[in-house]
Amino acid sequence: MHFPADAERLRGLIEDGEIDKAVFVGGGRIALEVTEAFFAQAVNSVIIEKEDSLLPTVLDPEMAASVAYALRNQGVEIFTSERVLRIERSEGSPGCRVVTETLDVAADAVIVAAGVKPNTRLAADAGLDIGKTGAIAVNAHLQTSDPDIYAGGDCAECTNLVSGEKAYVPLGSTANRHGRVIGDNVVGGDSTFPGIVGTAVMRTMGVNVAVTGITERRAKSLGYDTLSCIAPWMDRAHFYPGGKPIMIKMIADAADGRLLGAQAVGAGDVTKRIDVLATALTHGATINDVANLDIGYAPPYSTALDNIAHAANLLRNKRDGLADSITPMELRRRSERGEDFVLLDVREEGEVEMSGLKADNVCAIPLSRLSDSASDLPKDKELICFCKLGMRSYEACRMLKGMGVRDVKFLEGGLRLWTETDASTA
Amino acid sequence: MHFPADAERLRGLIEDGEIDKAVFVGGGRIALEVTEAFFAQAVNSVIIEKEDSLLPTVLDPEMAASVAYALRNQGVEIFTSERVLRIERSEGSPGCRVVTETLDVAADAVIVAAGVKPNTRLAADAGLDIGKTGAIAVNAHLQTSDPDIYAGGDCAECTNLVSGEKAYVPLGSTANRHGRVIGDNVVGGDSTFPGIVGTAVMRTMGVNVAVTGITERRAKSLGYDTLSCIAPWMDRAHFYPGGKPIMIKMIADAADGRLLGAQAVGAGDVTKRIDVLATALTHGATINDVANLDIGYAPPYSTALDNIAHAANLLRNKRDGLADSITPMELRRRSERGEDFVLLDVREEGEVEMSGLKADNVCAIPLSRLSDSASDLPKDKELICFCKLGMRSYEACRMLKGMGVRDVKFLEGGLRLWTETDASTA
Repeated sequence: MHFPADAERLRGLIEDGEIDKAVFVGGGRIALEVTEAFFAQAVNSVIIEKEDSLLPTVLDPEMAASVAYALRNQGVEIFTSERVLRIERSEGSPGCRVVTETLDVAADAVIVAAGVKPNTRLAADAGLDIGKTGAIAVNAHLQTSDPDIYAGGDCAECTNLVSGEKAYVPLGSTANRHGRVIGDNVVGGDSTFPGIVGTAVMRTMGVNVAVTGITERRAKSLGYDTLSCIAPWMDRAHFYPGGKPIMIKMIADAADGRLLGAQAVGAGDVTKRIDVLATALTHGATINDVANLDIGYAPPYSTALDNIAHAANLLRNKRDGLADSITPMELRRRSERGEDFVLLDVREEGEVEMSGLKADNVCAIPLSRLSDSASDLPKDKELICFCKLGMRSYEACRMLKGMGVRDVKFLEGGLRLWTETDASTA
Repeated sequence: MHFPADAERLRGLIEDGEIDKAVFVGGGRIALEVTEAFFAQAVNSVIIEKEDSLLPTVLDPEMAASVAYALRNQGVEIFTSERVLRIERSEGSPGCRVVTETLDVAADAVIVAAGVKPNTRLAADAGLDIGKTGAIAVNAHLQTSDPDIYAGGDCAECTNLVSGEKAYVPLGSTANRHGRVIGDNVVGGDSTFPGIVGTAVMRTMGVNVAVTGITERRAKSLGYDTLSCIAPWMDRAHFYPGGKPIMIKMIADAADGRLLGAQAVGAGDVTKRIDVLATALTHGATINDVANLDIGYAPPYSTALDNIAHAANLLRNKRDGLADSITPMELRRRSERGEDFVLLDVREEGEVEMSGLKADNVCAIPLSRLSDSASDLPKDKELICFCKLGMRSYEACRMLKGMGVRDVKFLEGGLRLWTETDASTA
């Protein structure tokens, strides 16, 4: 599967009714984009990923869980932490079987989408330096180790401007920019390509996924002390029809507030937010800078305080000790350990019953009545406030702290993130 | 018309069939947004603007012409350079008449949308400094001249980070940011609001309009030697369904290539591009920086080389003497003066007949045959190549220069910009 003709052959087989079920080896961008295309042709997809979450190089696990939740809801089967051992021809049928240590999945077609390797044979044979990413080493002028030979596009490596590392990120947009730099230089110009910040966007099953910078996982592995948050929100003013939810994870360097990366997932417009953050990252912006960016507001396009300002403000509140939150993942771990705390539901009466958060330690006091309900609060217990998206529960925390309650937190991302990261509900 | 009840009363009159035709005094954002709302209720709109183009503080005239073109095509009447002298009650009918030096327009309703003035009475009465913009003067902490009194939102002035000037730009997004800064500071914090870059977005009659920075007109009045271009383009990959046209004007400082502003207009996604450029402006980016920004590419969202990279590259080509262009406005002036040149149509045979460019000095040689057609070229005449959007005619220029033709330019923005800026066709 490298050429258009391969895709056309696959489409022909689907149109002839030969493929009802496809198995993807690898849960990266190619698998997810092709899953959407298969769905449109009524082909069922099974994704087998060897890492512990989808899109492991570009999304942190909780954001990947949100993508997996949406895909599973539409019938895609997803298995993570499963390494494919072999693909076997099925006896007595035209299909085959994909075998891992724990699975044996029948398939009419198997798509190996386990990553991209740069084609460097010509360069290596010519004696040019190959970088430690496996792609051709180039300088900012895109000259190889032989200054009369240039390399660009999917065979060349780039500098990641956030981490300073060399990176192999083959994308058409980068290749186009490389082309201009090389074109300038071979005719005597002096153009340079500074590098990338790790931006990638894709769509799968109606979910828009966009990322820039480095993941929190990667940042930690590079030794950063990270500050991060997850902010779910609508992508336009609440009173304007057609708004859709998106969820942004923002990651900063705790030492100086410098933005390190961001991930956005949802049915709404995530690419705008990530393109803005990619631009901010390129210029070394801090979360204070992001919160004050003069980006456009009108009801058809955004909220007065855009999602990225909201996320940056949440990060500032966490940094400054104003927002004391717990992630759904942490809450789940603490529940499993049987720890003692009270979950305080601050949603208004009449809101939908909470889903997923099955527990007997729940107490419900709507935010609007909280200030009059001090006497109803459980005494001497840690309180964890929750609401739908994490906004009102943050406000509840601030009020409770003002009322002298000391041990109080809120559930970050609210019930939305709780539900979307709960594998047992998907 | 200051309160929601006023709007509700107006809507009631429309629903009762009392208003068939409304006249707007002023062609700014409020007029254009309300025109769209009226259109949805089958009310005809007439816009009377005293400046020479719509949205005169945020769009340069040729971009405003493109907006006017779209509105006129949907039945909106627009008169520019017309100052309203008086509004008279019509005798014997419930409506009135709006009178200018040359017009006398009957109306069932008149909407005065001639700008916003800050409400500073309380501040002035209290003896606080009022800035020369007419709004309350504040420092970066949003303190007024009395450091114990803060001001923010629609009554306070801001610093424009591009021009360094004080500016009065009342927007809900800025007001929200002000609120947080003031809230922090009044409880002992140390927050500052750096300023704005002049971003504004709006929608009118299906046309998205977004701007950031300063207009070319404003830049020139501030003494900048400007470099500018207009680049029409689709907003997503040509092979992906649903792409829509947008047109970007980009303005830079010719001295150092620093971005000064951008305007984007069209049915497609302009807000994303302008938000990115607003972020770049905030950080003092140059057009080289913009061309190399690592913004996201996937076919549902953009082209591999996004519209803003394309515009930045066009500016770089103009700066470097590679792109020698003429705007439709200049071409029109030269045609009117009866100057001698040949218009070279480089579109392929079978493309739509050109519209608007009625002239007897047109010669057609498709780009694909240009290199073999040197002998067909008019001799010793200035050549002005044109095509649909200005891309192929640029390429034709490069080829012709390579073939030794010296006096050759291309029509910037192509026939699209030509048509949309021609008042006689609208």
